[in-house]
Amino acid sequence: MSDSVQNPARVVILGGGFAGVYTAKYLTKLLGRRRDVEVELLSEENYFVFQPLLPEVAAGGIAATHVVNPIRELVPKARFRCCSVASIDFEKKQVMVSQGAGLELVSVPYDQLVFCLGKVTHFANMPGVAEHALAMKDLADAFRLRNHVLRCLELADIEPDPDAKRALLSFVVAGGGFSGVETIGELAELVTRSLCYFPRIDPAEVRFSLVHAQQRILPEMPEALSLAARQILERRGVEMVLGARVRAASPSAVYLHDGRSLATRTFVCTVGTAPNPIVQSALAQGGFTQAELNGRAISAFATEPTLECAGRPGYWAVGDCAGIPSPTGQGLCPPTAQFAIREAKTCAANIVAAIDGQPKSRFAFRALGILASLGQRSAVAEMFGVRMSGFLAWFAWRTVYLAKLPGWVRRLRVALDWTLDLFFPRDITQLQVFQHEHLHVHHYEPGEAIVRQGQVGRELYLILKGEVEVSSSTSGKLVRLGAREVFGERAVLEDTRRNATVCATQAADVLVLSRADFHAMVQNLPVLRDYFADLLRVRHPDAMPAGGAAWDGLPKAPAVAPAELRAS
Amino acid sequence: MSDSVQNPARVVILGGGFAGVYTAKYLTKLLGRRRDVEVELLSEENYFVFQPLLPEVAAGGIAATHVVNPIRELVPKARFRCCSVASIDFEKKQVMVSQGAGLELVSVPYDQLVFCLGKVTHFANMPGVAEHALAMKDLADAFRLRNHVLRCLELADIEPDPDAKRALLSFVVAGGGFSGVETIGELAELVTRSLCYFPRIDPAEVRFSLVHAQQRILPEMPEALSLAARQILERRGVEMVLGARVRAASPSAVYLHDGRSLATRTFVCTVGTAPNPIVQSALAQGGFTQAELNGRAISAFATEPTLECAGRPGYWAVGDCAGIPSPTGQGLCPPTAQFAIREAKTCAANIVAAIDGQPKSRFAFRALGILASLGQRSAVAEMFGVRMSGFLAWFAWRTVYLAKLPGWVRRLRVALDWTLDLFFPRDITQLQVFQHEHLHVHHYEPGEAIVRQGQVGRELYLILKGEVEVSSSTSGKLVRLGAREVFGERAVLEDTRRNATVCATQAADVLVLSRADFHAMVQNLPVLRDYFADLLRVRHPDAMPAGGAAWDGLPKAPAVAPAELRAS
Repeated sequence: MSDSVQNPARVVILGGGFAGVYTAKYLTKLLGRRRDVEVELLSEENYFVFQPLLPEVAAGGIAATHVVNPIRELVPKARFRCCSVASIDFEKKQVMVSQGAGLELVSVPYDQLVFCLGKVTHFANMPGVAEHALAMKDLADAFRLRNHVLRCLELADIEPDPDAKRALLSFVVAGGGFSGVETIGELAELVTRSLCYFPRIDPAEVRFSLVHAQQRILPEMPEALSLAARQILERRGVEMVLGARVRAASPSAVYLHDGRSLATRTFVCTVGTAPNPIVQSALAQGGFTQAELNGRAISAFATEPTLECAGRPGYWAVGDCAGIPSPTGQGLCPPTAQFAIREAKTCAANIVAAIDGQPKSRFAFRALGILASLGQRSAVAEMFGVRMSGFLAWFAWRTVYLAKLPGWVRRLRVALDWTLDLFFPRDITQLQVFQHEHLHVHHYEPGEAIVRQGQVGRELYLILKGEVEVSSSTSGKLVRLGAREVFGERAVLEDTRRNATVCATQAADVLVLSRADFHAMVQNLPVLRDYFADLLRVRHPDAMPAGGAAWDGLPKAPAVAPAELRAS
Repeated sequence: MSDSVQNPARVVILGGGFAGVYTAKYLTKLLGRRRDVEVELLSEENYFVFQPLLPEVAAGGIAATHVVNPIRELVPKARFRCCSVASIDFEKKQVMVSQGAGLELVSVPYDQLVFCLGKVTHFANMPGVAEHALAMKDLADAFRLRNHVLRCLELADIEPDPDAKRALLSFVVAGGGFSGVETIGELAELVTRSLCYFPRIDPAEVRFSLVHAQQRILPEMPEALSLAARQILERRGVEMVLGARVRAASPSAVYLHDGRSLATRTFVCTVGTAPNPIVQSALAQGGFTQAELNGRAISAFATEPTLECAGRPGYWAVGDCAGIPSPTGQGLCPPTAQFAIREAKTCAANIVAAIDGQPKSRFAFRALGILASLGQRSAVAEMFGVRMSGFLAWFAWRTVYLAKLPGWVRRLRVALDWTLDLFFPRDITQLQVFQHEHLHVHHYEPGEAIVRQGQVGRELYLILKGEVEVSSSTSGKLVRLGAREVFGERAVLEDTRRNATVCATQAADVLVLSRADFHAMVQNLPVLRDYFADLLRVRHPDAMPAGGAAWDGLPKAPAVAPAELRAS
């Protein structure tokens, strides 16, 4: 704080993907040693993921840690805040964030606000897909997929039942865009190269399927390259399931709309995205204009060619959550990393111009090329108008991405990964670093606070042992609770802050139930529902209509916000 | 199967640590091309962890994947089975294992059985320690600790409350043995070197404490080296809390027996181990002799100097679960990797001798040296009688472990990690690859089996939507269940196999509760307890004494076996 001038202009950037990190990078570069502008970047993760290489991480060609960079290292001159955005107060110009172990709500003031929130994975109208499909969107997805595939091989090697073995050795990817095509190509490479370690798996038992709604994979590519990609993959044994849409998924099968089903234990779904919930609520309540594509409103901010949100000076949008008029005059800029980086540069320059009262410039950029890797030293590419497929395209693909990867250490490590990968078999270590305990028990010693008034409440507590004291500064009431009693129910039910502080008076063990778990159980076990309805009626007579009717108005087991899943 | 002769002698090795992997390695080497002996190794993880480097993984000096090797790669000529051992049938000479997605029970026959099961982490009589302490035993521990520490730094950087900030910046390790000393040294290095990225953390706010029950750390080392290690650590700001024992832990503090407490969000407990449950039950029921140390029986197999279990030909024990008479004639062999590897060599030779009816040899080995790293290019060591501390010892430590690390690719990668670490700051990426959803919902399409009769039951199911059919081949009964009804309760309550098959008859969503979760909830919410007591009374009148009294006999929320936590 010592090096800041009085009332610097505050630029707050929401999101740590390509758009957010590069906006911060260009902004701090332009600002140099200026002290009158402060840049702060907010993100849920403290690292930036180089998404184009995720399929290679999933296939074990590159270590997971080599495609991520700590944001603090990439933008050392910006402030960084690792937190979840809870809401935006457009009146007071502040972002409300939850951060820290106790999930305190903190306000972050801004003068200029940049939306770089991208999109989130969302599998609507496909029963079971959210539960059983793996996505290919962030590092955790890639990390999990790799370990899951290796687990399937381990199990298949010792599985006595032939049907079960077949499902373990069948790998299905939905979506024939870049992400889906690269994922099936890389998966095929991982499995094929690992089979030498599994003597009881016959290569003929392994099956790869790519499910795609259209007749042509890679529709963004020129038709000749789409066809080349398809031929390369088919030659390697990838079965094309074209013109087919996923209807549902279960732990052991994928069901298509045309009635077919594919028995599989590995289903990667690369289709299905939704706007970030913060973007959605800003569009609904913040007075922003929705972008339009082909005459239909889409869930993205309409921006001026300067990247300022239409009609809202001081607000900017970059990347996938922005509907930016294409410099060609037709439609919108595509949601690719290439464009996000260039948009970030224009946006940074225009923010400085806005602060300094200078004229702003228009976004102008033409795509340089388009590349898709297919695994096993082969790719398809069009660069500067030249089309390539096979090894040469693959070499170009590697070179381009190695050059784009931020940071020399990472580049060196990825280059080494690639080099070793040429000479050695894939690493088949199936990492088991996930926590499988479901519910958590916390222990508190006498005098310790378990929840504090004003915190964001996301858990319900059930006392297993000991005693606690509930005190509220507003009502002034003091209550003691003992074993088999619950507390924290109100904040979990009503999405408000904690209305009381709870301290252990004796050594206490408490069972912690997350909000999603609580809702799922209460709404589905009538006996629990009645129990909590009674409890609330007694404890909070003011809050409940007679007869506990409010229970019927409870939100459905909420689609848990990503923020909630990440908080640990 | 095609290359096996009729009735080969079957050697089954339980455990994939130093003892198990090296026994398999030496055995397959000795056997060469012999077809009359089959070696099979059983382990819960498909990789071998090079434990001595775990503290460096926790500190980010080495990538997690570089200290693990796939077991299939290390012992390509042995069969490998990734599974959990459920029990051993000593009569029929078979190991019962649970494996695969449905957790089917499979029997693995043996002629010679080698116990290499080591010990498990166990925090008894210290309330809250199992819940709130991190251990330093396997790869997941190291991986979690590193990410947890970086998360604390992220939160401390933006924490407005000074007390909360202090707890976030206080790092406590319990145990002054090798593991504890190396962990605090490496942690101090990680935090100190990462602070440059966190402008709002003052180095003076950071605190490291080592809690140790005795007055001297590293009691296994010569006294001069213990003292040197202590001085080196103290000079770096590690506070020694000696002669102190941990009494309890909560999410934000560690409590000592002498009444003191240390506010902290990071507590690593390196004390507290117990025998593997399989070893315990074999000792209790299998007719094995317990080892004795200083006249007291300990939970390990007493072995002959040939490593055969005392009085039980055909059974062998190697490593930490074995009480092997020391070749010096005094006491037992120490539980170190150095000894486990040498024991494995003798054991392998004696197993082949036993199969061939040749005389067996006695275990003979003297320790070569003893080393402990302290982080920041410093260590203490005694090798071949020479004592060293500081940089030279650290260099020796690195050289020895690099040479011991199995596999050239891993050695190259670790050497590169170490080289880059000399020139670049630590990677502060806080990986978020853990699953935070607690309860799981599964979706099933009509006709799919949810559980099959005979499977090991570890989950209870609550139907959220749809309908299922329960059919039992023994009772011949058919029952249909719908939304808000439960099934699978019996196998979860009684630890038996599934007594019926359950199939979806309509598209069904079911909530899956693990056994531990179920027990915790039922035993602590009286309303749920009554509900399930009634349910069981109606569904299984034969199994329940009148009045549902059996509920009082339910096992306490069980100390979940590691096998259960690992199955995914």
